[in-house]
Amino acid sequence: MNALQLDTVLLSEDRSCLEILDQTILPGTIKVLRISAIEDIWEAIKLLRVRGAPAIGVAAAYGIALTSSKIDTADTEKFYSEFKKQKEYLASSRPTAVNLFWALDRMERTVKENINMSVPELKECLFKEAQDIRDEDVAISRSIGQIGFGLLHHGDGILTHCNAGTLATAKYGTATAPVYLALENGWNDLRVYCDETRPLLQGARLTAFEMQTAGVDTTIICDNMASIVMKSGKVNIVFVGCDRVTRNGDAANKIGTSGVAILAKHYGIPFYVCAPSSTIDMSLESGDQIPIELRSPEEVTEMWYKERMAPEGVKVYNPAFDVTDHSLITGIITEKGLCKAPFDKAFEAYGIGK
Amino acid sequence: MNALQLDTVLLSEDRSCLEILDQTILPGTIKVLRISAIEDIWEAIKLLRVRGAPAIGVAAAYGIALTSSKIDTADTEKFYSEFKKQKEYLASSRPTAVNLFWALDRMERTVKENINMSVPELKECLFKEAQDIRDEDVAISRSIGQIGFGLLHHGDGILTHCNAGTLATAKYGTATAPVYLALENGWNDLRVYCDETRPLLQGARLTAFEMQTAGVDTTIICDNMASIVMKSGKVNIVFVGCDRVTRNGDAANKIGTSGVAILAKHYGIPFYVCAPSSTIDMSLESGDQIPIELRSPEEVTEMWYKERMAPEGVKVYNPAFDVTDHSLITGIITEKGLCKAPFDKAFEAYGIGK
Repeated sequence: MNALQLDTVLLSEDRSCLEILDQTILPGTIKVLRISAIEDIWEAIKLLRVRGAPAIGVAAAYGIALTSSKIDTADTEKFYSEFKKQKEYLASSRPTAVNLFWALDRMERTVKENINMSVPELKECLFKEAQDIRDEDVAISRSIGQIGFGLLHHGDGILTHCNAGTLATAKYGTATAPVYLALENGWNDLRVYCDETRPLLQGARLTAFEMQTAGVDTTIICDNMASIVMKSGKVNIVFVGCDRVTRNGDAANKIGTSGVAILAKHYGIPFYVCAPSSTIDMSLESGDQIPIELRSPEEVTEMWYKERMAPEGVKVYNPAFDVTDHSLITGIITEKGLCKAPFDKAFEAYGIGK
Repeated sequence: MNALQLDTVLLSEDRSCLEILDQTILPGTIKVLRISAIEDIWEAIKLLRVRGAPAIGVAAAYGIALTSSKIDTADTEKFYSEFKKQKEYLASSRPTAVNLFWALDRMERTVKENINMSVPELKECLFKEAQDIRDEDVAISRSIGQIGFGLLHHGDGILTHCNAGTLATAKYGTATAPVYLALENGWNDLRVYCDETRPLLQGARLTAFEMQTAGVDTTIICDNMASIVMKSGKVNIVFVGCDRVTRNGDAANKIGTSGVAILAKHYGIPFYVCAPSSTIDMSLESGDQIPIELRSPEEVTEMWYKERMAPEGVKVYNPAFDVTDHSLITGIITEKGLCKAPFDKAFEAYGIGK
């Protein structure tokens, strides 16, 4: 295990607190918050101190295991009633975070399924379930990393977009997982190019930070420099994460991903989407059915700036995601295996969406 | 003439001062500097209050016409000697600006060729030569605009990158010239998409500003949003400027231009380079021979930001330009005509580089 891989969210060994790497002050300040009050856990999720769907799920699971362990009753029904209040409160921290609800629902199911146990036993079950949620996430990322690592050659240059890194998951990330696996295998000669990823700069702030912390040769580029870097021969392979993949292999991911895929195809560079099978939505035929979130103009014109950098009143188009057409994707790496076109058949062969 | 097109640099009607739109404080503040002292003109060029090769040339020409008109002597040789001192001083404002030297050399040639005249006559010649330099630049841009306008249809969406606008020239710009011509022709239904153009944001700060000022329907996008905008069908044509074009049609322009060209080709959108024939360098066979300026990492990691947005010590690759392969270019619009592949033959047919 590479000692320099960051831990996004952990339960302390004595189970007294959550240890959350505060991502709101990265990369300038590396600070691990040790929190145990439910209000602090709520705030950490709300304010994006922990971010990324898998990491939020793990934080919520650990969080409710911790806070419910302090419910002072021997009455199982009373415990369950208090648990549900805590669950409702934590779920209110980010009302659109599907993985937050998924993790909390799973924790509640654990209570319901073990409602015949004593309260101390129930509390133990909840700690175990939270640990399982984390372990499963790590295993999924690690499996994606193993498959991606198999595609790498010594000295390769890897380009990635946005942050689908260990900071967004419990560990390894998705798009970064092949690099962490390479490090675990003693490879020290990979080079990673991070698109800065406007407007919110997750690539410059987060991916570059975690890659540099892991000791990887890391270079930041502006998004519009991907073409010249690819043309120069410095990039051998592209790994990106994804938010959602449709039956035909179209992949929605951070805005700009489709452009990277088109450039990669133009320059003959393989382009891989790293996708936990849970992100593959077999109910959608194609990416046309994925709604694209439009965000505020100020993210483009003002955020991060000393002063406004665009004329007042000008229109801004600020989509958060785009869809990469399946024809541009060399392969979709899931924890179950590497899928190649036709993607729908590959997904079915791996039992995804069943 | 559209009343809302900005004037980059003018000589006041009474010839008492230069009127320079201060581009260092755009788009927040619109301020026309009225300056006459040679130190102020030097500073305006040095500090990029006036920028863009053609605009710098015009500012220098007007500037030396103005400052030399105040040389208090009737002795032609003494006048020439003082003129040369002023020329040397102004040339020191931006030691790498080829167009600055070109304009000042042309002004000196005017003195030499008319050295038999009286000093008052010489001064008049210099004012006329400066005016000619401006008029010629306007005519070149206008001619490019006329040809580009011929490629437009009502309601078209136009995407451009960086600023090759009126702000970089005496008037009209190059990539923006077709839009200004459309306005002069009473068209009010074009839509312009401005790539913000990282790292220095010339698109968001300058192009969006001048297009909005001209009353054009203007939308800023981050560079990585060009793909989704093109895919959506909102863009019908791309116009970009260029710094240098080689014999085979390869075009060096602001970093990111080659990526825009690849996306345009992928989506079947025509991509035009707007190039005064003076930028076409027939002595270079291809873009491989064009050196690419690498600029400081801080432009990417710090500039414009409230705080550093990338980890300390991380590598940054920050090329200022890239080369767009001729195979990606639908046409190169010069003031002499529209050139299509094979570009070398087209350039020769128009007598370019002879």
